[in-house]
Amino acid sequence: MGWGDLGAFGEPSKETPNLDQMAAEGMLFLDFYTANPLCSPSRAALLTGRLPVRNGFYTTNGHARNAYTPQDIVGGIQDSELLLPELLKKAGYTNKIIGKWHLGHRPQFHPLRHGFHEWFGSPNCHFGPYDNRERPNIPVYRDWEMVGRYYEDFKIDLKTGEANLTQLYLQEALDFISKQQASQQPFFLYWAIDATHAPVYASKQFLGTSQRGLYGDAVREIDDSIGKILKHLQQLGISENTFVFFTSDNGAALISAPKQGGSNGPFLCGKQTTFEGGMREPAIAWWPGHIPAGGVSHQLGSVMDLFSTSLSLANLPPPSDRQIDGIDLLPAILQGKLIDRPIFYYRGNELMAVRAGLYKAHYWTWSNSWEEHSKGIDFCPGQSVAGVTTHTQEEHTILPLLFHLGRDPGEKYPLSFASEEYQRAVERISGLVQQHKAALVPGQPQLNVCDQAVMNWSPPGCEKLGKCLKAPESDPKKCSWPH
Amino acid sequence: MGWGDLGAFGEPSKETPNLDQMAAEGMLFLDFYTANPLCSPSRAALLTGRLPVRNGFYTTNGHARNAYTPQDIVGGIQDSELLLPELLKKAGYTNKIIGKWHLGHRPQFHPLRHGFHEWFGSPNCHFGPYDNRERPNIPVYRDWEMVGRYYEDFKIDLKTGEANLTQLYLQEALDFISKQQASQQPFFLYWAIDATHAPVYASKQFLGTSQRGLYGDAVREIDDSIGKILKHLQQLGISENTFVFFTSDNGAALISAPKQGGSNGPFLCGKQTTFEGGMREPAIAWWPGHIPAGGVSHQLGSVMDLFSTSLSLANLPPPSDRQIDGIDLLPAILQGKLIDRPIFYYRGNELMAVRAGLYKAHYWTWSNSWEEHSKGIDFCPGQSVAGVTTHTQEEHTILPLLFHLGRDPGEKYPLSFASEEYQRAVERISGLVQQHKAALVPGQPQLNVCDQAVMNWSPPGCEKLGKCLKAPESDPKKCSWPH
Repeated sequence: MGWGDLGAFGEPSKETPNLDQMAAEGMLFLDFYTANPLCSPSRAALLTGRLPVRNGFYTTNGHARNAYTPQDIVGGIQDSELLLPELLKKAGYTNKIIGKWHLGHRPQFHPLRHGFHEWFGSPNCHFGPYDNRERPNIPVYRDWEMVGRYYEDFKIDLKTGEANLTQLYLQEALDFISKQQASQQPFFLYWAIDATHAPVYASKQFLGTSQRGLYGDAVREIDDSIGKILKHLQQLGISENTFVFFTSDNGAALISAPKQGGSNGPFLCGKQTTFEGGMREPAIAWWPGHIPAGGVSHQLGSVMDLFSTSLSLANLPPPSDRQIDGIDLLPAILQGKLIDRPIFYYRGNELMAVRAGLYKAHYWTWSNSWEEHSKGIDFCPGQSVAGVTTHTQEEHTILPLLFHLGRDPGEKYPLSFASEEYQRAVERISGLVQQHKAALVPGQPQLNVCDQAVMNWSPPGCEKLGKCLKAPESDPKKCSWPH
Repeated sequence: MGWGDLGAFGEPSKETPNLDQMAAEGMLFLDFYTANPLCSPSRAALLTGRLPVRNGFYTTNGHARNAYTPQDIVGGIQDSELLLPELLKKAGYTNKIIGKWHLGHRPQFHPLRHGFHEWFGSPNCHFGPYDNRERPNIPVYRDWEMVGRYYEDFKIDLKTGEANLTQLYLQEALDFISKQQASQQPFFLYWAIDATHAPVYASKQFLGTSQRGLYGDAVREIDDSIGKILKHLQQLGISENTFVFFTSDNGAALISAPKQGGSNGPFLCGKQTTFEGGMREPAIAWWPGHIPAGGVSHQLGSVMDLFSTSLSLANLPPPSDRQIDGIDLLPAILQGKLIDRPIFYYRGNELMAVRAGLYKAHYWTWSNSWEEHSKGIDFCPGQSVAGVTTHTQEEHTILPLLFHLGRDPGEKYPLSFASEEYQRAVERISGLVQQHKAALVPGQPQLNVCDQAVMNWSPPGCEKLGKCLKAPESDPKKCSWPH
């Protein structure tokens, strides 16, 4: 989902009454970022509080290449990483993930081995369908074992876009919450729905209900579900004791627009890029009785802050043996304080850009290659800013491109190199970059090696279902990451 | 001001708390349009309820050219046109215009000759300053006579952007409202402020207060002023008896961005164009006790509807001797009804595009000429849609370009000519176009002839101030309209 997909963020169809209401009762974050313009690294960052370049969710196969966890990926989340649910578990929380995991699908990366008590969902993205010969269909797990596969047991109709997955995920969430409330158990629910990821889907009751087509139907179903979850918390009487945060893992995938992709509002480009459209996210914090209603925050925030903020809410100290990139947002949320901190925009192994205050400096610019672009793969459809949305990787390390995101949220007007304003801002940001790079210990890159043998051929539980497939010979290769 | 300049419409700095509050207490219109992507024709349409091509605010000097009322224009609003204040006057309303008139500056076009009782403001736009030799500075009138000139008596500091004009206009508004309330007089106030038009200005107390630079300062001052006006109505106890509507006369002037131009949110291009960014406007209706709070309307609306709606509020019938393009919006505002009606997008003498429902058909496309574009005049900075944002006037009459504005508000993805959806929608729109063109009686074009002799050399009242200037010989010429 993109920054511009919610009514509260100016989507012109205004079809998200529940999220808008959540914002009206809570706090809207206007300057909130993901840690990477792609799914897996963003989710790994959220759960570890660390940049993908530290937690290993990046590739060194090519410079500044986006990478994720397709089912032939060999890597995944390392045991050495401390995940939010692992820490919360020690404090007595019951943790559940519903939906897409995306931190590796091999046994050692299973979410229940990394702090979650329960899981209903899939290890990889729901695209496909596959033929179960070259590539198996993606399994859906309940806890330790698979309970079926997408397209076989969990239908997604690629023609109509119909799938009832969001309803399944909603029911899972409501049941889990009820159970925890009944047992007076503190809980962490990671509700990682994926209906707005291509192939976009919605349940029958939502199909055709949006002005925005199928993508809008999916947004409406998510919005409706969130309304039901919040209402459930209120009806159970635990809303004042439950912190809820809504955000997204990357900007809207404009490459899939308009049918399968959303809106990044006034921002430049989308998913896959380190322009604002790729990394600025819708974000809402909700906690009745604690967060003042109708709040609007310009705090620079990150999905990694959800790690630190959640620990703070649970009265747990953040790990002290490693660099944590997230910060505790509670002072910003509860007391309206503004914490001065930079935002680092990575693409793979490269620090592409840095934001400090309202200034953003690009050290590298790239949308995608000419070769891809000429095939119609476009991360910035309808947008083109000379020298900015470049189709070759352009280095600007000596004279970074500088934008003032207040006056120019669309990154269209680089500041003059000769201006005093440029000098002052770049000096400051350069200092932050030096400091950041000096302290950086990159993690072992997990997204370098692919092997057809590691795909979801025979997930645990496949025997009971008669759904085991025969894996081919192992043939490890460097994964190919075209952008 | 543009659609995307308000927090309620997704401006990422969220600096319009008063307008956002107005929306929260009233009704937000998401599909509201001006009648022309330029100032004068838009204002003439608002006050007459008629398209510029009918009321004469257009030119035939060139095809599809934007035209307005610079001070060498010979034409203006004709006596044969019926203006909203003329009609309200008959029903006992006291009418005041504060700010920019823009319907002609020669004596016969004076607002007090067209239904207004009072005026404080200027006949032309506040740009300049001029040298009083080649071009006089624009006068500011109080009622029948000038009381000074911009830059001389009404300062605008072009270096700092400081000017207290919005404060003057605010005080005028508050005083006028108080007076009418005291005399129990029904009133019509046309508050036509212009701080967001280049040269953008703000009062000292607002300078530097916005994340968005000077343009944002101007928006903040307007927002603050509107908050004060609404509060004043409430304090006087007449808010439940006063209908307030906020909108703009054209999309944000992206040619002046980022310092002097605003945001059209997710829409294509800006002022001067018939893309959504040029003509879709922010719009809010407010009438406590009548309009349900927090309403959101997808009614296709137009500034011309303010004519018809105001008459309806005053229990006056619309003129029956001429074609009125505006419709009464009260059923949409008070009962949430959706009235099916098209939106016609004109540029000068050409019907460029038509919207019906969520479909928009372009019969002509043009941003501006290659010649202008190569000089850096850009109505779509950072945006470029092949075959759509054309730099030559492209006719599509036989196969109009069709967009679905729900799925594709940014007009980036024309529908396939071969699709059934295209056939169905274009058939319907073509019928509307035929009907419209068959009934169209174009007005005498007022924006064809320019003459240096008619400029504001010696406005009424200039003698008292010693501000009369000597007019040059009359030398009427065809006005030059480059885009």
